[in-house]
Amino acid sequence: MNKIQFTAIGIIHSPIKVSRGAPIQPRYARGIEGRVEIFPEYVAGLADLAGFSHVTLIYYFHKAKGCSLRVVPFLDDQEHGVFATRSPHRPNPIGISVVKLLDVRDNILRICDIDALDGTPLLDIKPFVPEFFDRENIRLGWLHEKIV
Amino acid sequence: MNKIQFTAIGIIHSPIKVSRGAPIQPRYARGIEGRVEIFPEYVAGLADLAGFSHVTLIYYFHKAKGCSLRVVPFLDDQEHGVFATRSPHRPNPIGISVVKLLDVRDNILRICDIDALDGTPLLDIKPFVPEFFDRENIRLGWLHEKIV
Repeated sequence: MNKIQFTAIGIIHSPIKVSRGAPIQPRYARGIEGRVEIFPEYVAGLADLAGFSHVTLIYYFHKAKGCSLRVVPFLDDQEHGVFATRSPHRPNPIGISVVKLLDVRDNILRICDIDALDGTPLLDIKPFVPEFFDRENIRLGWLHEKIV
Repeated sequence: MNKIQFTAIGIIHSPIKVSRGAPIQPRYARGIEGRVEIFPEYVAGLADLAGFSHVTLIYYFHKAKGCSLRVVPFLDDQEHGVFATRSPHRPNPIGISVVKLLDVRDNILRICDIDALDGTPLLDIKPFVPEFFDRENIRLGWLHEKIV
């Protein structure tokens, strides 16, 4: 199987400095503000993002040490298959978090409810579009008029 | 910036054979059934996944040809920043889809509402936990009793 290669497009800056005790999902990170710094060569790709109330950040668990197929997650004292958890110790250490987007200015996104470690390499940003749920308090930017 | 290297953990099998006209998000893929084949060495990681009604698939847009920072998405006739869209033509061609999980048997997941191309290399699976929304008709597997 061929290797798949990615490169960071930016860095997540957050007040979470050590992984032990870090929130495991945004639910536990309510109110934690952070910043996403996008490298200058990708800034053109941010156009129209500010219209969305929430974005999905896709990032690299750069501090994860190795992979376990069975893990005891933060929220339990029993082992579960790693794919049934958000543990960073995954075959491909990819993390995703839905965060509130407060503001976009130049190459900096101000975000809220961030649960990633400070210094985390960012791989991608996508607009968050809740396909299944109540849309209260959600803004969908340019997509809104297309699908509502 | 260092390169980040991943390896496929499985393959998505879907009835969508060509990218032109492929659904762009699960909203437009309702009812489309597919299968995820997990490579045998990762099967232990699937334990407890069957308790979740929905999972997030993270995959590699293997047919994407190059990257554009501004794209005209399927749902519009105007250009948008690529990060405000789900276009595959991203700096890191990573796709995510929330799908219904119908069944897990050995190394095969039967899924519904799949919008990825047949043959797509799978990078990761995570349980789908709707932090922000109405929980009707959602099952959260082992997490349910921990957070509800």
